[in-house]
Amino acid sequence: MSQAGKFISLEGGEGVGKSTQLRALAAALAERGIDCLTTREPGGSEVAEAIRALLLGGDADRWSIRSEALLFAAARADHVEKTIRPALEQGRWVICDRFIDSSLAYQGEAGSLGIEAVRTINMFAIGDCLPDRTILLSLTGGDERAQARDGGASDRIGGRDADYHASVAIGFLKRLCDDPDRIHIVDASGPPHEVTTRVLRELQDLLP
Amino acid sequence: MSQAGKFISLEGGEGVGKSTQLRALAAALAERGIDCLTTREPGGSEVAEAIRALLLGGDADRWSIRSEALLFAAARADHVEKTIRPALEQGRWVICDRFIDSSLAYQGEAGSLGIEAVRTINMFAIGDCLPDRTILLSLTGGDERAQARDGGASDRIGGRDADYHASVAIGFLKRLCDDPDRIHIVDASGPPHEVTTRVLRELQDLLP
Repeated sequence: MSQAGKFISLEGGEGVGKSTQLRALAAALAERGIDCLTTREPGGSEVAEAIRALLLGGDADRWSIRSEALLFAAARADHVEKTIRPALEQGRWVICDRFIDSSLAYQGEAGSLGIEAVRTINMFAIGDCLPDRTILLSLTGGDERAQARDGGASDRIGGRDADYHASVAIGFLKRLCDDPDRIHIVDASGPPHEVTTRVLRELQDLLP
Repeated sequence: MSQAGKFISLEGGEGVGKSTQLRALAAALAERGIDCLTTREPGGSEVAEAIRALLLGGDADRWSIRSEALLFAAARADHVEKTIRPALEQGRWVICDRFIDSSLAYQGEAGSLGIEAVRTINMFAIGDCLPDRTILLSLTGGDERAQARDGGASDRIGGRDADYHASVAIGFLKRLCDDPDRIHIVDASGPPHEVTTRVLRELQDLLP
């Protein structure tokens, strides 16, 4: 059996540059001969994408916050079983745009369900499939820069108010203390290629 | 504020006569001047019905068992918040075809996830909204009679094999010991009107 691949998640608030860094990181790893699968949440498998369409459509108050948290977990369970775990078992690396820490920040911290309840349902969803490393992309210059970069909110959750997104940011930062070996913070400001260099530095110990 | 209504769930395996008893019970309670809302799971609210359509369609192995359990819980959270709790607060009775005990029997016992894990995600979903009484309709004469009554399996979950449905039946019976005050077993054999009489006997202490 080939050696298992590494599982990397990219986290952070709206407009912090996650999808740009996802592509740049996959390209940088490919140059080093590492075969990567890039994926995203919610979604990343056939039925998880169906759940994504349910979750991101409609009015901001369409879902109760408990339903929303359980749906994200349901999509994640399918994503792990159908996409992430099989790729890792084939020796591929998996880079995922958002994973469990987004649920802890959005539903646990900002959504007021509490971190522990959200952690419980998500650990049920993923079993032992935690990322080997999580990169938290962080902009310290405030929301304006992030909004300018991405052209503003793009879906039902992105469209929530500034207080909500401030709570999300705090939720992500609190995660650093919970799991410092896994979660590394990276300054997301400046030219994208400089950010990618910083990201790679935080993955140095995992590279072959 | 008017007095809160009572919440009754009907449980049991495939073809045991739950929907027939749901209608008969609502009619019998209406004769006693009790206003009833009848509903069913999965479903019973706009978004829960959307989840129901996802859950009951497609191949038998379309979902991982963890995804399935989380989706049932997500639908239940929405059903409670949008449909069941508002009706109870208006003083109406709610009679529901399947509720949390179906998840414990199907996903917990027959689906091999374990009762405790499934209970945890479902208690997260419903908060304090447990039924005041749960009627477990039970046929001791075996599956043949049930199949004959309902014309056979009707969806993706009903279509699973006999061993699965035997595990479900055991899962329901184990629930009796866990919560004997709430869950009362009723013999579901014989003419439907006789079954309804037995069901009403088990609700006697809740009637005004």
